[in-house]
Amino acid sequence: MFVEEEGGRFGVPCLGSRLSTGEIDPARARSLTDASGVTWERAMAGAGLDPEAIGPDPALLSWLDVFVELHVEQGRALEDTDHAVGVASAIWPHGRWRMDFRGRADHAGTTRLEDRADPMLPFAHTILAARALAERHEARATVAKGLITPNGTNAIPSLVSAWLDARAADRAALESVVEGVREAADRAARDHGVSLAMTAESTTPLVEFSHDLRDRLAGIVGGRAAESAGPVPVLPTGAGHDAGVLSAHVPTAMLYVRNPTGISHSPQEWARPEDSHAGVLALADVLADLLAVPGGTR
Amino acid sequence: MFVEEEGGRFGVPCLGSRLSTGEIDPARARSLTDASGVTWERAMAGAGLDPEAIGPDPALLSWLDVFVELHVEQGRALEDTDHAVGVASAIWPHGRWRMDFRGRADHAGTTRLEDRADPMLPFAHTILAARALAERHEARATVAKGLITPNGTNAIPSLVSAWLDARAADRAALESVVEGVREAADRAARDHGVSLAMTAESTTPLVEFSHDLRDRLAGIVGGRAAESAGPVPVLPTGAGHDAGVLSAHVPTAMLYVRNPTGISHSPQEWARPEDSHAGVLALADVLADLLAVPGGTR
Repeated sequence: MFVEEEGGRFGVPCLGSRLSTGEIDPARARSLTDASGVTWERAMAGAGLDPEAIGPDPALLSWLDVFVELHVEQGRALEDTDHAVGVASAIWPHGRWRMDFRGRADHAGTTRLEDRADPMLPFAHTILAARALAERHEARATVAKGLITPNGTNAIPSLVSAWLDARAADRAALESVVEGVREAADRAARDHGVSLAMTAESTTPLVEFSHDLRDRLAGIVGGRAAESAGPVPVLPTGAGHDAGVLSAHVPTAMLYVRNPTGISHSPQEWARPEDSHAGVLALADVLADLLAVPGGTR
Repeated sequence: MFVEEEGGRFGVPCLGSRLSTGEIDPARARSLTDASGVTWERAMAGAGLDPEAIGPDPALLSWLDVFVELHVEQGRALEDTDHAVGVASAIWPHGRWRMDFRGRADHAGTTRLEDRADPMLPFAHTILAARALAERHEARATVAKGLITPNGTNAIPSLVSAWLDARAADRAALESVVEGVREAADRAARDHGVSLAMTAESTTPLVEFSHDLRDRLAGIVGGRAAESAGPVPVLPTGAGHDAGVLSAHVPTAMLYVRNPTGISHSPQEWARPEDSHAGVLALADVLADLLAVPGGTR
C-alpha cells in the first residue's frame, strides 16, 4: 500500500501512488505546503527522510500485474444487503478547488456595514451554494475546510481561504457543480467588494475499473456468499483511492467490506470483525485465483 | 495604559483594565485559554511572569481622579469635518458570543446529502443572518472568527465554533440582534441535524461618558480648532476601550484623532502626523486644565 492517501496535510491526495507511478512531478510534490507554510521537502528532511529520493518507481510497474485494494465501504449500500463484501465498479470523477476571498481587514465594531469588504459573506454564500448545487445535480459538493485571516473576533478578515471538494457520477455533472460554485462565489464576492481567486488543487477523472477483472472478482466473492443473498453488489464510489491512480497503469479492482454506520473519515468508521474476516477471505480467494494464471489478467 | 485591550488571544478584551479594577476574577482570568488550549496562567509563567500577582489594584483607583484616553478614530466621522480631534460621547453596548455547532464527521465524497450532519451549513446561515440582522437594527454584527474541526478538505467537520461580535446604539437593539442570530443559528442547526451551544464570552453595557467632563473637553479642544470648523464633534463609538471599563469607577473621557481611511484593526489604520500632533496638544491642554483643579472633576 501507499503513504499519504488522504492528502490531509499537503492538499494532494494519493501522493504515494501518484509519485510511484509518475502521476505527479517530484519537484511539485516537494514544494507542496501545509497550512503553516511548511513544505513537504522540509517536513521530510525534518523526519530524517531524503526528499530527493522520491519519484517514479519503474520497477513497481514492471512487476505489478494486477492491483486489488481491500477497503471498508465508505457508505451504506452493503449494509442494506446480505453481503459482507462488494466489488467496485468505478470511482466518480472528483477534485479539490481552493478559493481565496480577499477583502479588507477592518474593525468589526466601528466599520459601517456599507463600508465593509468582508470575505466571510461570500465564503458563507459559497458553502450554501455548494450544497444547493450538489442537490440539483445529484452530486457531492462540500466546503469542509476554511482558513480565516487573522481570525480575530473583532477584526473583519482580510482573507478567507476555502476548499471545495466536489464529486459526481460523470464529468458533465461535476463540471456543472464546479462552474455553479464558481459563479455563485464570484457573484457573492463582487456583491461584497471582495476579490476571488479559484484554482484546482487536484482533479481526478472518472475511473472505470477493468470490467473483466470486476466480473471475475464478483464471481469469486459470490462463491463464498449465501445463495439467498443474490448477486454480489457492484458499486461506484465517490471516494478517491490509490486504486484509482494505479488503474491508469494496470488492471485494477477494489473489494469493499460492509460498514454498519456508513460513516467514514470519523472515529465512527468501522466494520464488524466477521465482515472484516469475510473481506480477508475474499481477497485471499482473489489472489489465489489470479496467481493460478501466470501473468495475472494481462 | 493597560495591557491586552484587544483580547485577541484569550477572548476577553480589556483584560488589563478589567483585572486592575476588579471587573474580572483573577482565577477566571488565569484559566482563560487560547485556541491551542494554552491557559493565560501557563502563557504568563512561560514568559517569566507570576500568574498569582494579577488582580485588583486598590491603589490605582485611590489615586486616579480622572481617566482620559487618546485614540485614533476607528471610523470616518472626523474625516468628513475640519476637525483633527473629536470627543467621545458613549460606547455602544457590545459583546462576544461563542457558538459551537456540533455535527457528525463523515466522508465528503461518499456521504449522501440526506445522511449528513454538516455543521458548516448552519455556520454559513449564521454568518449571513448576523449581517441581515445588523442591517435591520442599524447595528453591527460580525462573524469574523471560526474554528473548524478537523478542517480537512474531504472530511465533513464534527465541530465548527464561531464567534459573534455584536454592537448597537442601545441595549434593546443589541438584544434584538443577538436573539435574532440565536434563533437563526438554532433553526439552521436543527434543519441540518446539528446541535448548537451558544454562550456569552464577554458583554459590556452601554457606557455614557461623564457629560460634564465631555463638555469641558469639547470646550478645551475647540479652543485650538479654527473658528470656521464649527463645534467639536462629539461621537459615540462601537469600539470597546479601557476607558469604558474605567468609566464605572472614575469620571472618564476619550479624545479621537482623525483617521483618513476610517479603517481599523488593519495595517491600513493610521493618522496624519499633523493630526496626531493636534491630538497630543489637545491631551496636554486637557491635562493642564484638569491639574489646575485639585481633585480633578470629582
